[in-house]
Amino acid sequence: MSTAINLVSFEKLFSFSKSVFLSMGCPEEDAELAAKVLLSADLRGVDSHGVARLIGYVRLWEAGRINPTPNIKVIHETPSTATIDGDAGLGLVVAPKAMQIAIDKSENVGSGWVSVKNSNHYGIAGYHAMMALEHDMIGLSMTNASPLVSPTFSKERLLGTNPIAMAIPAGEEPAFVADFATTTAANGKLEILQRKQEDAPIGWVQDKDGAPSSDAAALKSGGALLPLGSDRVRSSHKGFCLGSMVDILSAVLSGAGYGPWAPPFVSFLPLPEDPVGEGLGHFFGAMRVDAFRPKEDFKSHMDNWIQRFKTAETVEGQERVLIPGTPEREIEHSRRTEGIPVLTPVIKDLEEVGKKFSLTL
Amino acid sequence: MSTAINLVSFEKLFSFSKSVFLSMGCPEEDAELAAKVLLSADLRGVDSHGVARLIGYVRLWEAGRINPTPNIKVIHETPSTATIDGDAGLGLVVAPKAMQIAIDKSENVGSGWVSVKNSNHYGIAGYHAMMALEHDMIGLSMTNASPLVSPTFSKERLLGTNPIAMAIPAGEEPAFVADFATTTAANGKLEILQRKQEDAPIGWVQDKDGAPSSDAAALKSGGALLPLGSDRVRSSHKGFCLGSMVDILSAVLSGAGYGPWAPPFVSFLPLPEDPVGEGLGHFFGAMRVDAFRPKEDFKSHMDNWIQRFKTAETVEGQERVLIPGTPEREIEHSRRTEGIPVLTPVIKDLEEVGKKFSLTL
Repeated sequence: MSTAINLVSFEKLFSFSKSVFLSMGCPEEDAELAAKVLLSADLRGVDSHGVARLIGYVRLWEAGRINPTPNIKVIHETPSTATIDGDAGLGLVVAPKAMQIAIDKSENVGSGWVSVKNSNHYGIAGYHAMMALEHDMIGLSMTNASPLVSPTFSKERLLGTNPIAMAIPAGEEPAFVADFATTTAANGKLEILQRKQEDAPIGWVQDKDGAPSSDAAALKSGGALLPLGSDRVRSSHKGFCLGSMVDILSAVLSGAGYGPWAPPFVSFLPLPEDPVGEGLGHFFGAMRVDAFRPKEDFKSHMDNWIQRFKTAETVEGQERVLIPGTPEREIEHSRRTEGIPVLTPVIKDLEEVGKKFSLTL
Repeated sequence: MSTAINLVSFEKLFSFSKSVFLSMGCPEEDAELAAKVLLSADLRGVDSHGVARLIGYVRLWEAGRINPTPNIKVIHETPSTATIDGDAGLGLVVAPKAMQIAIDKSENVGSGWVSVKNSNHYGIAGYHAMMALEHDMIGLSMTNASPLVSPTFSKERLLGTNPIAMAIPAGEEPAFVADFATTTAANGKLEILQRKQEDAPIGWVQDKDGAPSSDAAALKSGGALLPLGSDRVRSSHKGFCLGSMVDILSAVLSGAGYGPWAPPFVSFLPLPEDPVGEGLGHFFGAMRVDAFRPKEDFKSHMDNWIQRFKTAETVEGQERVLIPGTPEREIEHSRRTEGIPVLTPVIKDLEEVGKKFSLTL
């Protein structure tokens, strides 16, 4: 096996992932859904959140931290809100079911908002937000995550990369889809630099004493990711605000583990000894566009918005202004037809998983 | 009159501002509300958004762009949402009335979401979000604004500083109140550097060609403010996403002027010739905490969250991790008792306004 990138078809990765979830004991429908959500990351170019994480889910299941047959239930609700107990199910299954509840409530009363506890990693934030699009709704999705990020002025890691995604329908134009971690850089980008033995740009990480660092492996020696903004002068306190808002809406509101008590994704790290809540938390929202103005009016103005921004005059050397969601959509188009590039170490992980369950990729 | 800072009591500034709004023809109740919202900025240390802007509102009124007796009305609604036409009223009046509608809807169905068109500058975003606190609700407030910000890779100014505020109640601890522009730095900070003839840090502005600049006056020569993140390497596209989300929820959803069509705050700049909507737009949200979990549970966990973060181990030279809202609350405490520092040029502006209406400060 070469160290080069291996092109694997979407269908093959999908069917393998689904079989793995079935082998873990997930019902047919859940296994299908989990594979679909997981693979949406690979299709959209977010390689860190797709099949590369499959072995992580398996190890969590082996450690007894994932329940393959959860009883996902509404534990509190009003006409426009709900709180969901994910019963330690796969986040890949709990999240789309919770988002569906937000969509149903939005159908009934204009908007729906759902906070989730007792879940775990839910794949890419954007998948769930985008579920709203086919209903002509604006979708919102966020989640807290294992603590890797230091607040401004802190040496301690107290927040996850806590992503926010928002999907907004348009008319002729493709939808606006923002999906981003509330840190300057994602951990996956640092891992790429580590493999290449390159330095990280200043503003991505700090060292164990909280000093700016260009060490791409700073997290391994007690350092931390930095909130969006990088440093106080460039307003990292705003990234800290955003990450905190995600943590509170996802976990304090639902009763999940928040801040440094968020459970780790990796099974070799222990769960917090003094838990303040259950599992990881998510937060979802859906708003019917026509709960605010006629749908066709909104869509034609969104088209106008997108056209104006994408044709803005660019700085020299840049071809275009990118509307959020454009690069991911373009990658998805090519990966569906040409296949998904999978790194050799990921192929090895998948083979290890296959061996556990007597499956071949 | 010295160039030093002039300490003026809150009561004096409040009563003067209220008299000015009355002189513009606002009803008693609206003048009181507008003065309260305006002064909340001075109290909380956001000097750029308080009495320093009073003359700006007066000039917009003189230019016929502010209606002192607006018929603020709901033009579209569902149980959890509404769209408001501000009838060109003062944003300082339209915004709290719209937020009250969000709160009322939240009381009824768990959450309320209100998009506003045909408004103008609404003071500090945080005021409106904080209205939710006394109802044990989470409050959200955002607004679009005059275009001063270039998207990543763009030379053109297409977005405003588009702030987001979120207020979250706690129990024993003071509330969490985030309130921030979605740019690296606010324009007011650049104005301070210009007065001191100092350079701006790299990452705050770009020049007219879109190159990084340290010229604090770059905006005056065709430059632009940069989205939170500063540059592509440090994820300015995420700040662009945030500013865009605010623009779309505030203006495309309501029918206000969006992107480069947002009306300018200053009366000497013309309105867009080809308007795509009416006035400026805002977006508000309110969610009852007990629409998700029992109120006392939420509050005790918010207290725990705040205590954990504020006692985090700090980097050397920093005394504490600041919980969002803490510096503003501390400033408010001292300014209420000791008076509000007003710069000499602002005093002159207030005297000019006083002359127009035969009022003395």
